[in-house]
Amino acid sequence: MKAAVMGYGTIGSGVVTVLETNRDVIASRVGEVIEVSKVLDLRDFPGDPIEKKLVRDYMDIVNDPEIRIVVETMGGVEPAYTFVKAMLKSGKHVTTSNKALVADKGAELIRIAREHNVNFMFEASVGGGIPIIRPILKCLTGDVIEGIYGIVNGTTNYMLTKMAAEGSDFDDVLKEAQDHGYAEKDPTADIEGHDAQRKIAILTSLVAGRQIDYQDIPTEGITKISATDMKYAEAMKRVIKLVAASRKIGDTFSARVAPLMLPEGHPLYHVDDVFNAIMLHGNMLGDGMFYGSGAGSLPTASAVVGDIVDMARHIDKNVFIGWDDNKLILADPAADTYRFFIRTADDRSAVEAAFGSVEYVDAGISGEVGFVTGEMKQGDLDDKVQSLSDVRSCIRLA
Amino acid sequence: MKAAVMGYGTIGSGVVTVLETNRDVIASRVGEVIEVSKVLDLRDFPGDPIEKKLVRDYMDIVNDPEIRIVVETMGGVEPAYTFVKAMLKSGKHVTTSNKALVADKGAELIRIAREHNVNFMFEASVGGGIPIIRPILKCLTGDVIEGIYGIVNGTTNYMLTKMAAEGSDFDDVLKEAQDHGYAEKDPTADIEGHDAQRKIAILTSLVAGRQIDYQDIPTEGITKISATDMKYAEAMKRVIKLVAASRKIGDTFSARVAPLMLPEGHPLYHVDDVFNAIMLHGNMLGDGMFYGSGAGSLPTASAVVGDIVDMARHIDKNVFIGWDDNKLILADPAADTYRFFIRTADDRSAVEAAFGSVEYVDAGISGEVGFVTGEMKQGDLDDKVQSLSDVRSCIRLA
Repeated sequence: MKAAVMGYGTIGSGVVTVLETNRDVIASRVGEVIEVSKVLDLRDFPGDPIEKKLVRDYMDIVNDPEIRIVVETMGGVEPAYTFVKAMLKSGKHVTTSNKALVADKGAELIRIAREHNVNFMFEASVGGGIPIIRPILKCLTGDVIEGIYGIVNGTTNYMLTKMAAEGSDFDDVLKEAQDHGYAEKDPTADIEGHDAQRKIAILTSLVAGRQIDYQDIPTEGITKISATDMKYAEAMKRVIKLVAASRKIGDTFSARVAPLMLPEGHPLYHVDDVFNAIMLHGNMLGDGMFYGSGAGSLPTASAVVGDIVDMARHIDKNVFIGWDDNKLILADPAADTYRFFIRTADDRSAVEAAFGSVEYVDAGISGEVGFVTGEMKQGDLDDKVQSLSDVRSCIRLA
Repeated sequence: MKAAVMGYGTIGSGVVTVLETNRDVIASRVGEVIEVSKVLDLRDFPGDPIEKKLVRDYMDIVNDPEIRIVVETMGGVEPAYTFVKAMLKSGKHVTTSNKALVADKGAELIRIAREHNVNFMFEASVGGGIPIIRPILKCLTGDVIEGIYGIVNGTTNYMLTKMAAEGSDFDDVLKEAQDHGYAEKDPTADIEGHDAQRKIAILTSLVAGRQIDYQDIPTEGITKISATDMKYAEAMKRVIKLVAASRKIGDTFSARVAPLMLPEGHPLYHVDDVFNAIMLHGNMLGDGMFYGSGAGSLPTASAVVGDIVDMARHIDKNVFIGWDDNKLILADPAADTYRFFIRTADDRSAVEAAFGSVEYVDAGISGEVGFVTGEMKQGDLDDKVQSLSDVRSCIRLA
């Protein structure tokens, strides 16, 4: 069976490696060998085994009737969207690792795949190598999934782990992460939470069966987290993690990406470094967690190849995915309730005037007070914070 | 669609509850309502809603052509084996939570299901509600799975967690676990590791695609673990867990169930209380872990219902499971290498005469020495231990 890869970067080349390395076992699972016959990329790869398979024009793949399966690992919405749509419409199955494409166009591409009796799969778009899409669609089918709580961005998790362990400041850790190749030159998508925002939009859409627009999900990154915040977290025996979360509320969901202070004993507490973990809460199952390498060439490629095997096994059949393009309006995020950790230069009387009785936290920092509020609505918090004159941090507790 | 439940105990009644509670969402996933029309049990359940559905003879289910799906939650090999075989041969799909049945007869029942174009599924037989069978069969299909490391028995994990936290002795903790309903009156299957042995046999069979006889897996329970061992573990910053493990060695596997001392940072280190976790190592994925409620009525029933949904979606089609009854001979367990923690009343010169240079552990226990050997084969360890006169503990390190 012939396949094509669009985008021969980190993940695309990983897919070629996985198919080559595990060629025989994959053939035994599919019933025939999966062979990559064309690779779309505008760059040259002199000396690379795929050199002779390189094509520059995606129509060379569209027009190759032998190619039944296409891997999209280019990233970004365009031109990936145009290419993928053309592949599906010409009767080819497509798997992608591209969360931007899936978050933005997932519902439509699933529909187009169904109309052409092929499959559009995207296991690698969330959680890298960790199985999470298929467990939601194929395993937890006896449950109503009521909550999703994920550490889904390896870069920020690495940075927060370093900051907690070494007491270093955000900028120093970012530079170090960039030097190690864990953060990109332009780290915006990771550190501002945009990557996590797209991933929780995808997971929530799958659980809801409806389109969630990622732009509707309130998102804070980790750029405001400081070494001082980490000291308070330590004093509270908590860790700060960037959590992408979504909770069922009646017929809709409330979703948010933000740093959270997690207590010891929380399943995500010990998820460190570049690892990812996604916790699902089912109304019957209770908590289940999926943990592993959330990024990297081979782990992510492993998930892509899992899709290839599934598509090869269903080469003449569309496997139903219930994510329709009828948009779901999320619950009002101002109605979410949390306890909040706050640092302010205001004095205790100002704090108590605004918040009443609070729990003070002593982290040995002079010239400010740190405290934890009682449980309150996000909207009320936003109001009360206005009455303080110099708030330095505000981080939600889990 | 009509279903029957055989065995109305903890899990069987949980299945009825899950199907009832999530009736509408399950119907939307299957395309029709799943209705339990018969329940096989020899007991009476006066006042229970299923009272009028009770049957005493399994042939009443076999002979009911409306029943397409049968749930087996009786436990034990017989009469479950006879009943399940009859159901499959009469063209009914079967899902079971019964690890004894699956470990003993899995390959044969899978073959019989295939011959009758129905399915035999058993997601709930390992890891309770945690998806693990389907991830192995359907998700990690691009990988060669080279290792499985699981905490798969909630009772013993609860006991070891208590012993570590409270310094209590085995017998006291067992009594407490029995009082809380976490351990059975006859706890042998759990504390001697027999339950874990069957579960790792099932997982290894699925990964190998061949029959692994559970009797071939060397198995130690936790009955010899003492409060003193826990003190040494603490001094070593390790925890003791009952780990069911299996590693690929060439064309076969080496499997073992035994207490292991895990270092901080090990993915299973923080798996406490009645929780289960199973770590898989893929040659491309690296480490992935699945964590959650490993037992209990509703979590386990949730996994059974996941199978029901899958079978209802494939009501006219056998879904291939590659586990054939051609038995695989496991690797010689004497060739496994480990570092070992040993406690002995012998003195240091006797220890060093036997083991050469070792790492001593000071846990403040008088009248004995505790030490860690270098890496050595299990067979060599067994020989060397003979030269000591009073060995009190011997626990492998991970």
